[in-house]
Amino acid sequence: MEETFVPFQGIKNDLRGRLMCYKQDWTGGFRAGFRILAPTTYIFFASAIPVISFGEQLERDTEGALTAVQTLASTALCGVIHSIIGGQPLLILGVAEPTVIMYTFLFTFAKGRPDLGQNLFVAWTGWVCVWTAFLLFLLAILGACSIINRFTRVAGELFGLLIAMLFMQQAIKGLVDEFRIPKRENPNLTEFIPSWRFANGMFALVLSFGLLLTALKSRKARSWRYGSGWLRSLIADYGVPLMVLVWTAVSYIPSGSVPKGIPRRLFSPNPWSPGAYENWTVIKDMMDVPVLYIIGAFIPATMIAVLYYFDHSVASQLAQQKEFNLRKPSSYHYDLLLLGVLTLMCGLLGIPPANGVIPQSPMHTKSLATLKHQLLRNRLVATARKSIRKNASLGQLYGNMQEAYHQMQTPLVYQEPSAGGLKELKESTIQAATSMGNMDAPVDETLFDVEKEIDDLLPVEVKEQRLSNILQSLMVGGCVAAMPFLKKIPTSVLWGYFAFMAIESLPGNQFWERILLLFTAPSRRYKVLEEYHATFVETVPFKSIAMFTIFQTIYLLICFGLTWVPIAGLMFPLMIMLLVPVRQYFLPKFFKGAHLQDLDAAEYEEAPALPFNLATESELGAGASALADEGEILDDVITRSRGEFRHVSSPKITSSTATPANDPKSLQSPRRSYSPRVSELKGVPSPRSSGRGQHSPRTGEVRSSPLGKSPIDTV
Amino acid sequence: MEETFVPFQGIKNDLRGRLMCYKQDWTGGFRAGFRILAPTTYIFFASAIPVISFGEQLERDTEGALTAVQTLASTALCGVIHSIIGGQPLLILGVAEPTVIMYTFLFTFAKGRPDLGQNLFVAWTGWVCVWTAFLLFLLAILGACSIINRFTRVAGELFGLLIAMLFMQQAIKGLVDEFRIPKRENPNLTEFIPSWRFANGMFALVLSFGLLLTALKSRKARSWRYGSGWLRSLIADYGVPLMVLVWTAVSYIPSGSVPKGIPRRLFSPNPWSPGAYENWTVIKDMMDVPVLYIIGAFIPATMIAVLYYFDHSVASQLAQQKEFNLRKPSSYHYDLLLLGVLTLMCGLLGIPPANGVIPQSPMHTKSLATLKHQLLRNRLVATARKSIRKNASLGQLYGNMQEAYHQMQTPLVYQEPSAGGLKELKESTIQAATSMGNMDAPVDETLFDVEKEIDDLLPVEVKEQRLSNILQSLMVGGCVAAMPFLKKIPTSVLWGYFAFMAIESLPGNQFWERILLLFTAPSRRYKVLEEYHATFVETVPFKSIAMFTIFQTIYLLICFGLTWVPIAGLMFPLMIMLLVPVRQYFLPKFFKGAHLQDLDAAEYEEAPALPFNLATESELGAGASALADEGEILDDVITRSRGEFRHVSSPKITSSTATPANDPKSLQSPRRSYSPRVSELKGVPSPRSSGRGQHSPRTGEVRSSPLGKSPIDTV
Repeated sequence: MEETFVPFQGIKNDLRGRLMCYKQDWTGGFRAGFRILAPTTYIFFASAIPVISFGEQLERDTEGALTAVQTLASTALCGVIHSIIGGQPLLILGVAEPTVIMYTFLFTFAKGRPDLGQNLFVAWTGWVCVWTAFLLFLLAILGACSIINRFTRVAGELFGLLIAMLFMQQAIKGLVDEFRIPKRENPNLTEFIPSWRFANGMFALVLSFGLLLTALKSRKARSWRYGSGWLRSLIADYGVPLMVLVWTAVSYIPSGSVPKGIPRRLFSPNPWSPGAYENWTVIKDMMDVPVLYIIGAFIPATMIAVLYYFDHSVASQLAQQKEFNLRKPSSYHYDLLLLGVLTLMCGLLGIPPANGVIPQSPMHTKSLATLKHQLLRNRLVATARKSIRKNASLGQLYGNMQEAYHQMQTPLVYQEPSAGGLKELKESTIQAATSMGNMDAPVDETLFDVEKEIDDLLPVEVKEQRLSNILQSLMVGGCVAAMPFLKKIPTSVLWGYFAFMAIESLPGNQFWERILLLFTAPSRRYKVLEEYHATFVETVPFKSIAMFTIFQTIYLLICFGLTWVPIAGLMFPLMIMLLVPVRQYFLPKFFKGAHLQDLDAAEYEEAPALPFNLATESELGAGASALADEGEILDDVITRSRGEFRHVSSPKITSSTATPANDPKSLQSPRRSYSPRVSELKGVPSPRSSGRGQHSPRTGEVRSSPLGKSPIDTV
Repeated sequence: MEETFVPFQGIKNDLRGRLMCYKQDWTGGFRAGFRILAPTTYIFFASAIPVISFGEQLERDTEGALTAVQTLASTALCGVIHSIIGGQPLLILGVAEPTVIMYTFLFTFAKGRPDLGQNLFVAWTGWVCVWTAFLLFLLAILGACSIINRFTRVAGELFGLLIAMLFMQQAIKGLVDEFRIPKRENPNLTEFIPSWRFANGMFALVLSFGLLLTALKSRKARSWRYGSGWLRSLIADYGVPLMVLVWTAVSYIPSGSVPKGIPRRLFSPNPWSPGAYENWTVIKDMMDVPVLYIIGAFIPATMIAVLYYFDHSVASQLAQQKEFNLRKPSSYHYDLLLLGVLTLMCGLLGIPPANGVIPQSPMHTKSLATLKHQLLRNRLVATARKSIRKNASLGQLYGNMQEAYHQMQTPLVYQEPSAGGLKELKESTIQAATSMGNMDAPVDETLFDVEKEIDDLLPVEVKEQRLSNILQSLMVGGCVAAMPFLKKIPTSVLWGYFAFMAIESLPGNQFWERILLLFTAPSRRYKVLEEYHATFVETVPFKSIAMFTIFQTIYLLICFGLTWVPIAGLMFPLMIMLLVPVRQYFLPKFFKGAHLQDLDAAEYEEAPALPFNLATESELGAGASALADEGEILDDVITRSRGEFRHVSSPKITSSTATPANDPKSLQSPRRSYSPRVSELKGVPSPRSSGRGQHSPRTGEVRSSPLGKSPIDTV
């Protein structure tokens, strides 16, 4: 994205790009079939549970002026609208913690003014939203989002980790509060005598740790050894909501012998009661707000606007990280404009506005990546197996696989030949195979390990669609109606879920992985290479990695500390915004350019990105149903988490495939021609750079690589 | 062991064999240095905690006649005596659950007889012990233990799993009881009102699951990625006792806000109080027991004798399973005789007798195996590295390694050349290397992966010594004195520990692994091969494995059910004894001989075992101190649990090494000559038998093996 500040230019570009793929955003989603329900349910829970909990927090802090009903309604409404007319359909909208903090501040202020008071609080927030919307419009129109490429990994991942810390803080705070008497309750109730309070706290520990541990286990179900494939898939896909159900059921086991209030459960007004809709007509009261306050609302509005500008853009950016190989254009400006509209709407309806949320937005893309990977892989494995059964040669095999791959990718417009997925890999393999003269020999499975080879070939690609987002938003809307049922969930299960979300957001965050690397014994650092592949581990000296990570950690702790400061805490988004100039002007003085590039690739330092590529997913649905039974073989591969997903068309891969063909020794040992390709594609280091790399299960390949200068090799 | 029923013959043989290595049993232990403390502490906790808990159970059931002080005293006394003059020093003695059940029955009987009564109960058990001792003498003298080789894996592993079930049952029962009012307590105390009872139960859940999960995690510390090597080793070695301390400390956190009785803690009399030694002078009362009861004591004595005969022998057998490659002779007859003496002594002292216990005895050997493996491996790795630095050839390298190996094994007597450890492996390697003509080329570490190769070569061998056993017995004795401190441990931590012991005893139990195999998805069965190598997985059809396992499971459930039956339950050892004829006469009608052989190798169906081999461990101590820092590199290898350890001199290995030398292709690719040897040594299957074996990380080796008939290979 070029940095252009011509008014409306950014919005125009975004609209043009997204309109082109609009139809396919819908068809693609429907073609995925029922499988789309897994990521949808997953993201629905990740979206609804914090929103309910923030609603509870808001209710406590605003003395009932705003409740979980309002936060859910806002999330649902904004979500539905965004998923229909929004730009980036992977972005998940919701009422977030910073909004809650902001509203609490507004309430405290309003309550202290006799001419505003509690009664006009909601009306006044309406005016704040009006101003915020105005500022967001300005930012969107003037192209403020074109500096989004200056929000590098450093800023995004730091923000992600900060949110994870806030979630974890909420989990811990919630658990500690289970041992205390809640403020709004009557302290003379049976359940608040010391013994029952202690019992409640201990029960809360059991429920929340139970949920946390079982939810974490269930996410790994694909790699379990026991049970049939469909059961494992089911548990991996729906395990987390299932565990919420299970632990809610468990919380009822001792109900015969404990007072009604133990364990504590969600507290929220009945949305079916007549009083629940009072604030929806807030627009009538807005004119009663004194003019001075209408103008004064501009001050908090600037803070909210900065927050939303950053939060919304970073959430969108994290949802479309380049590891996911998205093919459709981004839409930062238009989405910011739409956010302004949504904020205005929420303000006028008297509900807190929703914006793009972390970690739910990247979680959404990740869960779709899993789905997509599964479908593609099933298809390719089946094709390869079929070819082998027909005694195809290696050349035919690759031909068939490429055909199948393209059937699932049929290019529509903007096709870019070099991004053609398997193509390069096929070429290099065929080249190598030809040089051995065995191109036409039939392949058998002992030689060509179908699943392994395909895993090495297959890029991660997520196809954007709007279906999962609209479905989850509708389900959040359904929560408002289902409030009487939701109230059966114990609050302690919620705290466990908060901890779960914090932990789930960590893998893939390179900042977090670098922190772990600092604590890794030097002799075991090679293991990081094996599991979370990231370029920097190979190229940047450990000392620089450590320095960079420590700097980032201190910065994070300052930001986290800021959120504790009563009013200044609202400025923490500014601290993160400050990272942009810090990264651009300050860090290059302390770190080598090449190292910074690997630790925190900034787009303005990189080669121009590849043009995007539109594709229909014609085969997505069909592949899923026909090959569902094959799925289980492959399950454990996709559960691995990696820091970086492989890029299909990075220059690294192309450059490394030339060697074997010129290597005379490859005539004798066919493995040599495959191994280096596979190992370098996967980023397995050469023996020199790996240190203890010999331990890796891939040892054999590294050793027999033509690059290894072993004396016996030269005999 | 031949089956000889000549009186005293067995005892004589045992004594002759063990006397020969008696001195070395001590010197070997002392040479291991401080490292011996790790297995000692580990086994001390595994021994003391159940004994304390059984003592509590006994106190409840005998209305205070016998307490934890007595069970601890018996365990310590018998342990010290056995470790000094016993035959098999790896055998751990302790008061076991079956003894407790038996004593409970005796108490109930005595209480119901007016002419015996509660007062003469302990005196009467003295007579029971006298008769039991007499029967054990008879059995030992008449050579009953020579049928020990008919106690096959089936019987031993079934018994092991039964004990694990009893432990788990006790853990669950204990936890459930935490929610109830204990029988012996005053139900009007504050801590027994419903709210505090519920709070206590929930707290117990937190403490016991906390202990269980952290203890299980800490045992795997060697393979952690974080922290330095010594810290990981420390946690792995002492993590379990540490966790008992930690969770006991945690149990005191809420002490300000809860009544004194929450959480419940160990209840035991103060051994320093004057009344605690009443029953030690029981010998005076024994003459007061009516003659009829003296004679009648013979009936329970037969049952106890059968139980001890089986339990003691099987515990001894499991502690010296052939996977551990022990080199010293067994001592079943003499140990049974000694058990008779100990039982007599305990009876006269008025304490319940101790016998060989499961799972502590095999746990003991396993923890020593870890120690020994570490020391040997450090030594060989260092030697290999040194040779490589000196540019040694492959031949020299193996020569040096073998020399180092023999330095640690210096044979004294009974040396058998073919059991010479590395010898065969070296020969086959040299043979292969010579045929390639590169015997004298210097080796470098990229080619010869020191650690991996040594892991493949190194057999598991445990050196028997008496030090760890006597130390742990003395520590158990110290527990009697430390009772006031032990009473601070919450009972719930105990229940967690019981569950931990049950789970820790499972890996390595092939019966358990076969049960798991039944639940493994067919497509993932190959993974069992990768982790727990066991011959049967390769050679026996799945249907036969399943049939055999289901039969065994039903048998196990019957035995477990029997323990619930009030008095007949005492017969459950008979049920397990019955397995001997079942295995010998009944099972061969349903399963093929070869399959039975692999599923349950009975010694009488096998080739005669190799003569044993005495060795000094002269280098054990020196190697440990000099190379302690190298240890961490190797840590994660030894934490792997395998079903079967490799045997150095099994005929399988020798037969498979001939191929490469005659293979002309090995001239081009040196890997080919190593690979098949390594892979077959490890039992990696050929592609044919493995099914999904291609998935294994060792894929490369299997594929490039000269046995694999790949079309490209033949070009």
